[in-house]
Amino acid sequence: MSALPGRIIHFGNFNVTSQVFHITKHSFALVNLKPLLPGHILVSPLAVKPHLSDLTKDEISDLFLTVTRIQRTLKRLYKADAFNIAVQDGKAAGQSVPHVHCHVIPRTDGDPGGDDKVHQWLEGEEGDVGRHQREAGTGAQDGGSGKQDGERQAGQWAKDEERKPRGKEEMEREARWLREEIEKDEQHDANEKL
Amino acid sequence: MSALPGRIIHFGNFNVTSQVFHITKHSFALVNLKPLLPGHILVSPLAVKPHLSDLTKDEISDLFLTVTRIQRTLKRLYKADAFNIAVQDGKAAGQSVPHVHCHVIPRTDGDPGGDDKVHQWLEGEEGDVGRHQREAGTGAQDGGSGKQDGERQAGQWAKDEERKPRGKEEMEREARWLREEIEKDEQHDANEKL
Repeated sequence: MSALPGRIIHFGNFNVTSQVFHITKHSFALVNLKPLLPGHILVSPLAVKPHLSDLTKDEISDLFLTVTRIQRTLKRLYKADAFNIAVQDGKAAGQSVPHVHCHVIPRTDGDPGGDDKVHQWLEGEEGDVGRHQREAGTGAQDGGSGKQDGERQAGQWAKDEERKPRGKEEMEREARWLREEIEKDEQHDANEKL
Repeated sequence: MSALPGRIIHFGNFNVTSQVFHITKHSFALVNLKPLLPGHILVSPLAVKPHLSDLTKDEISDLFLTVTRIQRTLKRLYKADAFNIAVQDGKAAGQSVPHVHCHVIPRTDGDPGGDDKVHQWLEGEEGDVGRHQREAGTGAQDGGSGKQDGERQAGQWAKDEERKPRGKEEMEREARWLREEIEKDEQHDANEKL
């Protein structure tokens, strides 16, 4: 299912509607502002809840079924040999946005993420999705608290002139592409069942 | 549910029955021979399947619902503030045993796993669960192929004198303790419902 026209999707405090490429009953998937490797995406519950333990059984099931459904399309598009699937469930585990998100990172033999690079990036500044969202100025204007590390006060989002429009356009193009490719896979499945 | 008496549980090619502390309809949880941090455990599907994409929807749901159920007990026992939840889904992502396994690693503020150490360990030799199982000599005697890195030929498991009995005893004690503590939490839930 595509993002519904007019529907606003929040990732923590951030309005990420333009980054969303897939929505299910309880979950959504979004492209990263700064992917660690090509095809690195996030899957979150639609409900803004910080921990896995806050989710209902249906939300847990839907989240990880969505991860595997998207893996299939990413595997085809990025010729992935493998995937890193990771949830930083709480700040002490490196979580930068207090909204459950599962990293899905396509891997190929010999990619630059080898020798543990992906994991170093994930916990380091490179993987700080909260910081990237703040820098992109996608924060909601409702004064919520989508941040944890105290770098910027709530409400103090990046100004318009600080936005990176090229990154935003590229990101939206990627989201549109992924949405279409997932729909192709779903259409293929529907045809198989006829 | 505890391990059924007489039931043999395999993790890849390894007989890990003595490490198992929880079994559900489709999944099981086992203690690590060499935990990266206290309380580091693994959750796997009972079916020996290498990739998430090999699992049925029921197996996926059950796997991650089992992860969250166990997190609850680990959080209490290890006073965890957070968790790293990670699946290395394929060799190019660091998978060392070709059987889906989800790492569940309790984290506390200021623990030695900070500054990305947990992730470095996870992909490095410290987190090579296949190697640890081989060194512990828990390989099945059926000549299967629970190895990927060519370090030891299939069937050439560690000899009895190479075993680390203290580690094994400690591991079994931990498995027994976790089994009892999970049963307490389940009993508590059952009483709540009365």
